[in-house]
Amino acid sequence: MSDYIKIAVDAMGGDNSPQKIVDGIVHYHNHNKNVFYKIFGNKNEIENCLRNKIQKKFFEIIHSDNIVKNTDSPLEAAKRGKDTSMWLSIESVKKKEADIVISAGNTGALLVIAKLNLKMIENIDKPALSALWPNKKGMSVVLDLGANIECSSKNLFDFSVMGASLYKSLYPENNPNVALLNIGSEELKGNEIIKETFQLLNKKEKNDFNFSGYIEGDKLMNGDVNVIVSDGFTGNVALKTAEGTANFITSELRNALSGTLIGKISSILNFSNLKKFKKRLDPRLYNGAIFIGLDSPVVKSHGGTDFIGFSNSLDVCYKIVKGNLIQKIKNNIK
Amino acid sequence: MSDYIKIAVDAMGGDNSPQKIVDGIVHYHNHNKNVFYKIFGNKNEIENCLRNKIQKKFFEIIHSDNIVKNTDSPLEAAKRGKDTSMWLSIESVKKKEADIVISAGNTGALLVIAKLNLKMIENIDKPALSALWPNKKGMSVVLDLGANIECSSKNLFDFSVMGASLYKSLYPENNPNVALLNIGSEELKGNEIIKETFQLLNKKEKNDFNFSGYIEGDKLMNGDVNVIVSDGFTGNVALKTAEGTANFITSELRNALSGTLIGKISSILNFSNLKKFKKRLDPRLYNGAIFIGLDSPVVKSHGGTDFIGFSNSLDVCYKIVKGNLIQKIKNNIK
Repeated sequence: MSDYIKIAVDAMGGDNSPQKIVDGIVHYHNHNKNVFYKIFGNKNEIENCLRNKIQKKFFEIIHSDNIVKNTDSPLEAAKRGKDTSMWLSIESVKKKEADIVISAGNTGALLVIAKLNLKMIENIDKPALSALWPNKKGMSVVLDLGANIECSSKNLFDFSVMGASLYKSLYPENNPNVALLNIGSEELKGNEIIKETFQLLNKKEKNDFNFSGYIEGDKLMNGDVNVIVSDGFTGNVALKTAEGTANFITSELRNALSGTLIGKISSILNFSNLKKFKKRLDPRLYNGAIFIGLDSPVVKSHGGTDFIGFSNSLDVCYKIVKGNLIQKIKNNIK
Repeated sequence: MSDYIKIAVDAMGGDNSPQKIVDGIVHYHNHNKNVFYKIFGNKNEIENCLRNKIQKKFFEIIHSDNIVKNTDSPLEAAKRGKDTSMWLSIESVKKKEADIVISAGNTGALLVIAKLNLKMIENIDKPALSALWPNKKGMSVVLDLGANIECSSKNLFDFSVMGASLYKSLYPENNPNVALLNIGSEELKGNEIIKETFQLLNKKEKNDFNFSGYIEGDKLMNGDVNVIVSDGFTGNVALKTAEGTANFITSELRNALSGTLIGKISSILNFSNLKKFKKRLDPRLYNGAIFIGLDSPVVKSHGGTDFIGFSNSLDVCYKIVKGNLIQKIKNNIK
């Protein structure tokens, strides 16, 4: 079992847990047998969900009575949370008993408990929340999505290196193009911090990625840039605006297509194509945010996703560990 | 002709000008006879485009040899631009010879030349660039979209008042709901400037609008908020990200629908519904940004729009003047 990686799973976070979490594990296990799961949470409930669908050699359940609730403030969770499934799962990567940790629970609590337990990677000043975005050619990595409201040029520089390393771990074939999210593509545009970051990245010796300068919001999904870097405030607004726009357009489309009898009939005729369209935009494909900068990666699955989405996040965990993300960051930040 | 308003039109800006500009004027004139146009630009070219489609009592052409090019930097345009159609059209509102000015030309130059020529409204510190966004229930006003990269709480407060006045000029029926673009809806979220603005707006006596607190990017298009306020950096990123997402989704949809023969046939069957969908998202409907805060409103039409889009921007000009935008701002800012 030497090729095995170990994933610590908080089974109690998100909607319909632990059933969804366990189903996600079973689903991913049927695709990839190279993972050992340390499952944290209520042992009885988890066993009832598992019903021997996976052989015992592939998992271990670590019982805990308590959980972090979605309504807990991050500080409450950090103060009173030491015996929760979330805390214990993070502690297991701290103790090197697992390679990576994943939770679908309370995001703020997860970030705070992870920061309390794990060390920063040397030379990185702040961790960042990153995620995958679909684009015309595939996927890109975007960060920071809200962990840091205000950022220095050194922070944005770190995020560029970490984002490039993450992309390269997930998609090892090519060196990614990295760009700074800005309001113009000319060198003179933007605030002072962005201009300073531009200079820092221009000067840096880059082995694992290319620096493409600035990117504007309307080009984010063209697929020419693989890693998009921003402070957490702007990145969060951009991500959520894209979500809101996608929801708006698909609901307008639904209204338009279901308006008349002919609309309904031709929508049925067109069912397979519309399914292809929906599949392309399926948020489960890019479920999960990755919290990077700490000496172990922490993956946040969306609380509302289903077992397929959770299974996709487990695949992200697998690729991150196999791609040696943390070592890549250390090599690149030097 | 006492109900007439006077619009100063820079006829030489944007693609296919002056033909597009003149066609837009003719198109709008056929819907609304209550406008007198002061048309600035090359007299011969404009007359050739007009070909007597409008009676002479409805317009006047003010000849200029020079134009501001799209490649001119704002400073170049301001230095060498005194005899251009753009400069002269702005000067005409300064001299109160027109009520409002519109151009489809170089945005940066337009903002700089407007700031050079026109005074600020008393008690407003900075002008802002605003635009209309479609949402599930209609349209909303969003500002600032890039005129001010960094903003104080006083600036954001001013933008709230100006945005509310603009909305009320365009849609007089209801008092608008105003919200600050933020990364969470709780009072504690966001940076210090946003939190200060929240307090300022909470305390203010508001006659013409309601303050709804914070709004996140994913709710922008729900239609519950009518005026969305942000610094120019974040607002620009949000606007362009929404544009990019809309382009991405419609191109994915096009790919999906044209993939197979059945897809093509049912798309043809569904033609009228898809047309309805496209019409709902037609960017010409919300063409044009409005530069507010100066003692005359300045409207920027998109350079790439067609005569229908330009005609819609003329309607925005008409409503702004009829709605007494500047007076509304003065009343609200007190």
